[in-house]
Amino acid sequence: MRATVMYAAGDVRVKTVPDARLTEATDVLVTVTRAAICGSDLWPYKSMEPSETGRRMGHEFIGVLEDVGADVRTMKAGDLVISPFVWSDGTCVFCQEGLQPSCLHGGRYGDDGVDGGQGEAVRVPQADGTLVVLPVGRDDALMPSLLTLTDVMATGHHAALAANVGPGKTVAVVGDGAVGLCAVIAARRLGAERIIILGRHPDRIALAKDFGATDVVSERGDEAVERVRELTGGFGAHSVLECVGLDESTQAAIEIARPGGAVGRVGVTQDESMLASQPAFFHNVTVSGGPAPVRGYIEELLPDILEGRIEPGRVFDRVVGLDEVPDGYRAMNGRESIKMMVNPT
Amino acid sequence: MRATVMYAAGDVRVKTVPDARLTEATDVLVTVTRAAICGSDLWPYKSMEPSETGRRMGHEFIGVLEDVGADVRTMKAGDLVISPFVWSDGTCVFCQEGLQPSCLHGGRYGDDGVDGGQGEAVRVPQADGTLVVLPVGRDDALMPSLLTLTDVMATGHHAALAANVGPGKTVAVVGDGAVGLCAVIAARRLGAERIIILGRHPDRIALAKDFGATDVVSERGDEAVERVRELTGGFGAHSVLECVGLDESTQAAIEIARPGGAVGRVGVTQDESMLASQPAFFHNVTVSGGPAPVRGYIEELLPDILEGRIEPGRVFDRVVGLDEVPDGYRAMNGRESIKMMVNPT
Repeated sequence: MRATVMYAAGDVRVKTVPDARLTEATDVLVTVTRAAICGSDLWPYKSMEPSETGRRMGHEFIGVLEDVGADVRTMKAGDLVISPFVWSDGTCVFCQEGLQPSCLHGGRYGDDGVDGGQGEAVRVPQADGTLVVLPVGRDDALMPSLLTLTDVMATGHHAALAANVGPGKTVAVVGDGAVGLCAVIAARRLGAERIIILGRHPDRIALAKDFGATDVVSERGDEAVERVRELTGGFGAHSVLECVGLDESTQAAIEIARPGGAVGRVGVTQDESMLASQPAFFHNVTVSGGPAPVRGYIEELLPDILEGRIEPGRVFDRVVGLDEVPDGYRAMNGRESIKMMVNPT
Repeated sequence: MRATVMYAAGDVRVKTVPDARLTEATDVLVTVTRAAICGSDLWPYKSMEPSETGRRMGHEFIGVLEDVGADVRTMKAGDLVISPFVWSDGTCVFCQEGLQPSCLHGGRYGDDGVDGGQGEAVRVPQADGTLVVLPVGRDDALMPSLLTLTDVMATGHHAALAANVGPGKTVAVVGDGAVGLCAVIAARRLGAERIIILGRHPDRIALAKDFGATDVVSERGDEAVERVRELTGGFGAHSVLECVGLDESTQAAIEIARPGGAVGRVGVTQDESMLASQPAFFHNVTVSGGPAPVRGYIEELLPDILEGRIEPGRVFDRVVGLDEVPDGYRAMNGRESIKMMVNPT
C-alpha cells in the first residue's frame, strides 16, 4: 500500500510500504477515505533530523472497516469509522475518567509499527476503545466537519472547557489557525457572550467572524494585550484559549486573562524554553492558585475554628512581645520557629 | 505609637512612628491585640535593599476597634476584628466575585501611608469590606487559630480549592511551613482520603500527621517525585498543593500530579526565573489544558455536526489526493492553506 513518510525537514514522500494487516484480536483494518494534515505535522516538517527509515505520518482520519479482529465487539466490516488522534483501550482508569490521551495501554499513530493516517490503510489497535462508528455514508457532505472531530474541533472544544467557557463569558482566542478557528466555534457553542479572536490573516479572520467571533485583535505582543484590555473595560477576558503553543503567545494568553480567569492551552509547546511546563501540558495538569481571597474564606472557615473542628493555631510555636519582633524574624528565618505570634499590647 | 520597620535585609527595628488615626470616613482605627510574622515577611528580610525611611511590616493581625469612621456601618467601637492580609472595598466587581486580592480599590498594609500589622495600632481603610467581627473575647483560647485566618489557614484552603481537593482524592502537599501545614488541615477538611506531606523537619512532620497527613515523603527533587509515584501506584496525586514558591518545588509539584490532576500553588514566586508566570499567579489565573481527550468529545460533538449546528469543516480550504500530500505540507507550511484534507482513495 502507499503511505506518507517523512525523511527529514521538508522531505515528505508518498511511498509504498508493507500492507496494513491485523496483528492483534483487538485490531481492525481501516481503508482510509479521508485524512488531514495537522498543524503539529508541520513541526517535524520544519525541524526533523534526517532519518533513513523515515517516519510514518498522519493521525487524523476517517475510513471504512475492511477487516475486524476476533475480539472486536462494537463494529463490523463495512462500517464507516472515525479515529481520535491517539488510540486508547477505553477501559483503563484514565479512559474511564475521560482522559484517553493518558490511556495506560494506548499510543500514537505512526509509532511502534502502527500505521499513520495519511495513507491508504491503517491497522487500528484497541478498536473498541478507539473508534466511533459514523451514521453517514463515506462521501456525505458533512465529511469535512466530521474529519475535524479527529483533532482540531475536539482540541478547540478542549481549550474552551479548560478555560471554563460558559454562558455570558468574554472569551479570547489566541491564534487563527484551524484549532483557533474551531475554538471560536466551541466558545460560541458553549454560550460565550463575546469572542475576541487574535490573528491577522484576513481570510481566517473572515471565517472566525462567520464562526461567531465578535471582535478582532490584529496587533501582536504587548500591543495585543493592551487592545484586549481596552476591549474588556481594562479587565481582560474570563477565558483565554491558547491555540498556538509558542512562548510569546502563551505569555500573551496569561496576560489577557481577567483576574480569576482561566487559560486553556492546547497549542503544543514548541519553544524549548517551555520545557519546564511540558509535564503539565502533556498530562493535562491544571495549574491554579495565587493570593488567597481571605475575606471570603474567613467567613467560611470561622465556624470550624469556633466549634473546634480545626486547630490551625498550632502552627504558632512561639509568642513574642512587640520589642522582641526583630528576634522573631531572626528565629523564623533560621527555622527555629514555624511561625511567630506577636502580642503588641 | 510603636511599630515594626524594616530598613534592610536582616535589619528589623521596633520604632516610634506617627500614631495611627482615621483619615477617611470608611476607615477604622484598630488597636492590635495579636499579630504574626508571615513567611513572606522573610523575603525582604533576606533581600531588601537598604532604605533610609524603611518599610512598615506586618499584614496578619487581630485587634479591637478604637475609633470608627462616619461611613462605617457593620462594626462599632469595642468590637474585636480580624483582617485579611489585604484590604478591599467589598463592593467592586472582583470583591463580588470573591476575589478580594484583585479589588479595584483595595491595597496592602504597609504601603501608601497605611500602617503595618506588626505594631500597636493600624488604620484600616474600607473597614466594612475588609474586617470581620469576631464573636469571642480578645484573649480567647482560640486566638492562635483565629489569627491563622488572616493568611496561612486561608491560604492553605485556597491551595486546596485551586487543586480541586475533594472526597476520596489523593493529595500531596509540597512544603512543611505554616502554609503547608494549614494546607493539610484544609485537605482533610475537604474530605481528602490520603494526604502526602513533602517535608523533612521532624517537628513539623509530627504536626502535619496530627493535622491529618497519612504519608510523609522526606526526599527532595527527583527522588521525591519518584517516592510520590511509588506511593500512588505510579500515577501521582489528584491534587498537589504547592506551598513553597521556588522553581524546584513548583516543578516537583507539577511532576507529582496525576494525569488530569491539578496543582494549587500559593507559595509566592521567589525565583526570578518564575517571573514569566507571575501574572498568572498574582491574578489567580488558572492555566489548564493539554492533549484533548478526543474519544469522548467525538460523541459529545457529533450530534451538533449531524444536525448542522456547527460547521468546523470549513477550516479545510484545500483537498489533495495521496500523491499530492508532499505539496500539501509545503502549502500549509507556507500559510497558503489553513488546513489540508487528503482523499487517499
